[in-house]
Amino acid sequence: MTARARRIRLAAQPAGALAPADFVLEEIALPVPRSGQVLLRTRFVSLDPYLARAMHAGGGVISGRMIAEVLESGAGQLQQGDVVLVTGPWQDLLTVEESAGRRLDVAGIAASAWIGMLGSPGITAWAGVNRVLAPRAGETVVVSAAAGPVGSVAGQLARLAGARVIGVAGGQEKCDYVRSLGFDACIDHRAGALADALAAAAPSGVDAVFENVGADTLDPVLPLMNKSGRIALCGLFQHYQDRLPVTLANFRMLLDRALRIQGFHVADHADAFALAEQELAAHLRAGRLRYRETVTDGFENTPQAFVNMLAGRGTGKHLVRV
Amino acid sequence: MTARARRIRLAAQPAGALAPADFVLEEIALPVPRSGQVLLRTRFVSLDPYLARAMHAGGGVISGRMIAEVLESGAGQLQQGDVVLVTGPWQDLLTVEESAGRRLDVAGIAASAWIGMLGSPGITAWAGVNRVLAPRAGETVVVSAAAGPVGSVAGQLARLAGARVIGVAGGQEKCDYVRSLGFDACIDHRAGALADALAAAAPSGVDAVFENVGADTLDPVLPLMNKSGRIALCGLFQHYQDRLPVTLANFRMLLDRALRIQGFHVADHADAFALAEQELAAHLRAGRLRYRETVTDGFENTPQAFVNMLAGRGTGKHLVRV
Repeated sequence: MTARARRIRLAAQPAGALAPADFVLEEIALPVPRSGQVLLRTRFVSLDPYLARAMHAGGGVISGRMIAEVLESGAGQLQQGDVVLVTGPWQDLLTVEESAGRRLDVAGIAASAWIGMLGSPGITAWAGVNRVLAPRAGETVVVSAAAGPVGSVAGQLARLAGARVIGVAGGQEKCDYVRSLGFDACIDHRAGALADALAAAAPSGVDAVFENVGADTLDPVLPLMNKSGRIALCGLFQHYQDRLPVTLANFRMLLDRALRIQGFHVADHADAFALAEQELAAHLRAGRLRYRETVTDGFENTPQAFVNMLAGRGTGKHLVRV
Repeated sequence: MTARARRIRLAAQPAGALAPADFVLEEIALPVPRSGQVLLRTRFVSLDPYLARAMHAGGGVISGRMIAEVLESGAGQLQQGDVVLVTGPWQDLLTVEESAGRRLDVAGIAASAWIGMLGSPGITAWAGVNRVLAPRAGETVVVSAAAGPVGSVAGQLARLAGARVIGVAGGQEKCDYVRSLGFDACIDHRAGALADALAAAAPSGVDAVFENVGADTLDPVLPLMNKSGRIALCGLFQHYQDRLPVTLANFRMLLDRALRIQGFHVADHADAFALAEQELAAHLRAGRLRYRETVTDGFENTPQAFVNMLAGRGTGKHLVRV
């Protein structure tokens, strides 16, 4: 019997900012699992900003992260009912090599945490904070997109390291959320006068920045930075959907204050994944780290949910529950 | 007897790009050296781009580096005839605390080398190459302002480390000079199409950049950089005389390629000054490092010589012989 799956792909390479109309929902025939393969049913689709870059670069089938349950398995390591993390085309059912699915420990941890705090966003935050910024007790750290799945964890980790942490987020609701996570302050960049608000919130200057957005948040913080400050460049959310040049009025501060900007990829810190997961899971179980999710129900709503995420509607990790 | 000295200072805070008319030459009464002081006669005035920043910030008396000879001394460590390095107001005669003058070893080394290859420019190059970039054998390094006193040494040091070194300079004459120093290639940025010329000169991509100029030279090299490339930000010559924002079309490469930009100040590497001087002097005496000077005669010509230096007229270290 040939099963059928629903798949979401791009209709074509997008011309401008992504919209739901750029995606198509189609039905495809699913290959019967051969030996060594498993049939998976998707439970959660992970919505991540980095996917927008690949979409703009190519079009076609989207390869993203999902949490899935094993429906059919051979005599391999994965058993029916196992919950796995898999990277593949956005489908509600999929057939993959058994080795492509990683079985997850869901004892006392929500399955969806494995695409959030314990997944790529959380580990990215861990790497940026511990491997790039290394904040010290008493330092001041600014985190942009602080209500997002990476920024929210980065700020909490910097606080656990003893730093004073200032979040920057868009809107009062997001800032309320950021403060509820224990950030020392949160600035709503939609309220305007970001530079003044940052200066008021950082009377001792800024020692480190966890940057997720781009020029709009980075430029105002540069004049506040202390000598030899560090900037972990984790994302450029603001600049993903266009090709415009990036303009920084305060670029000279890099020289004046002997600052360091370090772009980084979580994939380059694979040696630390096990340690990061272990530390994050321990913090999570002990209640030292908190997170929120923006959940959309229904596989067919994935395009709209993805566009909402890009538009910054909602807090924390965005995902679709299938 | 009160000696008189000639002094050059700024008439006022400059309104735009510096011109000779922004400076005044005046005669001042020189204090008679008290105990612990020495009277110096200036032999060379060092002309350095960083001074332009202080001039634009303030105006008034200029504090720069000079090579001077001791005319009168007490019973201290400095003797009449000693050659010293001193930082002070641009004057042809000056009275300073003995401790402000550093006696120089001029045996087999031209006195002027102590404001060039063995002075701040050479040590800046040493720190940027050894402490920030750490080029490895076989890597490709790009050096901007490669005909200048910092860039010319930086490129030669990177070559001594086994790297392939591409210089960028303004004009054919400067590029001829850069190639004569042993650089593997030199690109005249005035010829246009810098991005294409860099790509042709760097078939294996670029691993490290020694940046002295700004967006005009940094932006075209960013798309050529290999993963995890390093950029030592030593100067922003192009951006010293205005307050315009800095625009980089290829800023996203910092994230895409996980690049590092490190602004640095030579003063932060004081622990290495002795080592740097020793290595540079050894290279110089062995003929492994070469340099050129652009010398202007006459103290009264210092303003014009300084403006010429800022305009990029001449190669190597710029100085005035008094």
